[in-house]
Amino acid sequence: MPYYVGRVVDSEQSLVARTPEAFRKKQNIDVRIRHEVEAVDLAGRRVSGRDLESGAVFEKPFDTLLIATGASPMVPDIPGVRSRNVFTLSSLEGGVELRRFVDENAPKRAVIVGGGYIGLEMAEALLGRGIETALIEREAEVMGTLDPDMGSLVSGAVEEAGVALYRKESLTGFEVGGDAVRAVVTDQRTLPVDMVILGLGVRPASGLARDAGIPLGEKGSIRVNDRMQTPVEGVWAAGDCAESFHLVSRRPFWVALGTVANKHGRVAGMNLSGGDEIFPGVVGTAVTKMKDTEVARTGLMEREIRALGLDFVQARIDDRTRAGYYPGSAKITVKLLAEKGSGRLLGGQIVGGEGSAKRIDVIAAALHAGFSAGQLLYLDLGYAPPFSPVWDPVLTAARVLVSSF
Amino acid sequence: MPYYVGRVVDSEQSLVARTPEAFRKKQNIDVRIRHEVEAVDLAGRRVSGRDLESGAVFEKPFDTLLIATGASPMVPDIPGVRSRNVFTLSSLEGGVELRRFVDENAPKRAVIVGGGYIGLEMAEALLGRGIETALIEREAEVMGTLDPDMGSLVSGAVEEAGVALYRKESLTGFEVGGDAVRAVVTDQRTLPVDMVILGLGVRPASGLARDAGIPLGEKGSIRVNDRMQTPVEGVWAAGDCAESFHLVSRRPFWVALGTVANKHGRVAGMNLSGGDEIFPGVVGTAVTKMKDTEVARTGLMEREIRALGLDFVQARIDDRTRAGYYPGSAKITVKLLAEKGSGRLLGGQIVGGEGSAKRIDVIAAALHAGFSAGQLLYLDLGYAPPFSPVWDPVLTAARVLVSSF
Repeated sequence: MPYYVGRVVDSEQSLVARTPEAFRKKQNIDVRIRHEVEAVDLAGRRVSGRDLESGAVFEKPFDTLLIATGASPMVPDIPGVRSRNVFTLSSLEGGVELRRFVDENAPKRAVIVGGGYIGLEMAEALLGRGIETALIEREAEVMGTLDPDMGSLVSGAVEEAGVALYRKESLTGFEVGGDAVRAVVTDQRTLPVDMVILGLGVRPASGLARDAGIPLGEKGSIRVNDRMQTPVEGVWAAGDCAESFHLVSRRPFWVALGTVANKHGRVAGMNLSGGDEIFPGVVGTAVTKMKDTEVARTGLMEREIRALGLDFVQARIDDRTRAGYYPGSAKITVKLLAEKGSGRLLGGQIVGGEGSAKRIDVIAAALHAGFSAGQLLYLDLGYAPPFSPVWDPVLTAARVLVSSF
Repeated sequence: MPYYVGRVVDSEQSLVARTPEAFRKKQNIDVRIRHEVEAVDLAGRRVSGRDLESGAVFEKPFDTLLIATGASPMVPDIPGVRSRNVFTLSSLEGGVELRRFVDENAPKRAVIVGGGYIGLEMAEALLGRGIETALIEREAEVMGTLDPDMGSLVSGAVEEAGVALYRKESLTGFEVGGDAVRAVVTDQRTLPVDMVILGLGVRPASGLARDAGIPLGEKGSIRVNDRMQTPVEGVWAAGDCAESFHLVSRRPFWVALGTVANKHGRVAGMNLSGGDEIFPGVVGTAVTKMKDTEVARTGLMEREIRALGLDFVQARIDDRTRAGYYPGSAKITVKLLAEKGSGRLLGGQIVGGEGSAKRIDVIAAALHAGFSAGQLLYLDLGYAPPFSPVWDPVLTAARVLVSSF
């Protein structure tokens, strides 16, 4: 949706993966949109709810139930937060509404609250629309899923892109005039605005499951086993509302990302239709970009490693994305973290120019394999001058990490 | 060097990784260039040879010997092959000479013999210099390190780039006039030329070792263990002249690539200076490009799998490098091969637009880990619309492969 708002993508329809009609025709699945389930009766094996168009109440019995209610954006309980120029990005409709607002009102000044994935992508989108954009981040650096030393590189890219970045600063209120927010108030300043984007993260939309008595797990997500089955017989959950297993921490983990949701869906769908498919788990991989700066992370960051009580070593290297002499070679910074003693790889973070982000996939694969830094070092990765230095930057980081043992 | 000849890189010096002076100053290593060792006396623990500048003979005793003599280009035994306008690419001097020839003679027509990595990269370089370029390939498709169904995509890219491609055609002779080849003769036609490039592959430059009685292995490369130690006490070998171990076939393997040579060098250097480092082996990864078409391969191809007597299944999928709706999304074709029964991944090949080639690294890592196609399918790879579809093309190929079991 940030790309749709930023006019990088122009057709709203191209963002629809599959229409209700396609579900009906191709898979013989009866998809009812704008139908909200309000209660699940586990004993009676039925769901009940409301047709949001007609207002009519409905009830539907089930043998097998899949809960795929997704995630909801965090919205602070501040007066004015429901004003017509305050947006979150959580549904296609929300994105369409936001773009229409920009198209019709030509806002001049925007404030984004929160410097995570949504915040950064929206900042790029709004800059692309010629809107003067400020970003408020509570922490010392944007991108809180990276360690601060790597996050600072992203903060730099945000500022370089032309965003007024206010770090270590918190939203405290809105100045409202009529049906709109006129200014954003922080603990440091007041910023006049024409529009506000809230990028404060999401939480599992698990209220329906909770109210039905289905056990919740990590961060309020629906507890599932590696077949995406909840502890309640015949009830399954998948996607942003459901729990995952973290293969590095070996603990339950919750993450709301399209890739993981898609894998959940495949596994749940196969199993509830009689198959026997296992979802092994995730390693916490995510990528994004801010203009020409690509950002990637996987595994555990320092804070998470400390919380597990593990000792670690780390290496951070600056390198080039291509052979130094090859045109278009860009700067790349790679950080690796490994367990002290065993050398087991725990995580990696990458910030750099074109060709940086997807290098995280090798580190992710290494985490799936349980590789040590020493094993990562000798991976037979592809080399040609247009694509990499002879030692891929990921391998160079492993080399430095290994020499620090 | 192709990039230097093609003027993509302009400084010859930028291609020198480290000068003899730097070796001397930084590492206190006495590097003698233009000194050719002509014999190794294992019993007497000495090498002897000739200073190519002065012609003076030298002798040098050793306790420990590292042989890093590289590889030599294959040159067919055809009259005229040593003419001044027939080139191979095997040394920096050769590359400099080739570029000077092009700069000074402004050749109009070139023929490249052999459609491997060097042939393709040189074709791109010569096209970039405005030279009418033909390529002769003995097999049905260029890029013989890919299966023919994937190689045909590369053949298409070569022709699309403007190269006159003659497949299933063999060099039979040269028409020589004075000190130059005037035409290349194949079993099908005669092509008038101003210059010829031989890209017929390389072989280990292991004659010195062989003559000294050091055992040779795969394809005449110097036999070494996983510490890069030859069977002769105190004698080590590394780089294009030395053998590797193939982690998928579990057999000795020879490959001449800069990445592997660098890893050999690190391991040999650490061990012969008292360390204890293991080189686990290779999986046969290589990448290149032809204009906008990126090419990558890893693991075993069909022919190699059959030679091992293994049964296999395969999947080949067409996909996009980015989310379909995101600008710059390009076509990508991914092929995966796995062992029938076990599902163990055996190899992968990729041909596609920008962002394709380095995706091979995930497959390479999976081969190192001994993953099955089913394990590859659930890797937690990075997703954002500018970088990938929700299911990375590699995962999509794994999904199709798994469903073929």
